[in-house]
Amino acid sequence: MSCGKKCAQIAHASVSAYEKSSTQVKKAWFSEGQKKVILKVTTERDLFELRSLAEAAGISASIISDAGLTEIPPGTVTALGLGPALSENLDRITSNLSLL
Amino acid sequence: MSCGKKCAQIAHASVSAYEKSSTQVKKAWFSEGQKKVILKVTTERDLFELRSLAEAAGISASIISDAGLTEIPPGTVTALGLGPALSENLDRITSNLSLL
Repeated sequence: MSCGKKCAQIAHASVSAYEKSSTQVKKAWFSEGQKKVILKVTTERDLFELRSLAEAAGISASIISDAGLTEIPPGTVTALGLGPALSENLDRITSNLSLL
Repeated sequence: MSCGKKCAQIAHASVSAYEKSSTQVKKAWFSEGQKKVILKVTTERDLFELRSLAEAAGISASIISDAGLTEIPPGTVTALGLGPALSENLDRITSNLSLL
């Protein structure tokens, strides 16, 4: 994927996970600077495993499948949005991943 | 900026513009597939001019300044989130821009 395409997937994931969060979590995250961290995984399976871990920890999680109008086939899983959540709780799930 | 850094700016811009929108606009956009287009500008001034045009057209707009913790100086203006809005209304403002 081009960088622009990656940006679009990240935007989808961010808005989707954000939308699933409670009003209280949204407000807390806005008041604390809306920290975001962009990480990469090796396989599609990693995304589903991370989603399971997040959901078990009560963290909002949203898998993104692309419509496939440009660059990649329809239905390709491209990203996972997690949070907002406390950094320490997200780190427990994602601390072994590298920055994109 | 690295691609990961650009992704983070786009995510900020998307969530911020989305959050400023009305519930009705949010729902309509979700039901229609959440289309996103990632475009580039030449100068910081372009972002402020686009924001003015969007606001005059009643389109949600959100300028992003980076906290400057990585890669760029604090306060650097990095992105502008526009919408959600009807494609035809956004195109009126952004149709001369290229894809990122």
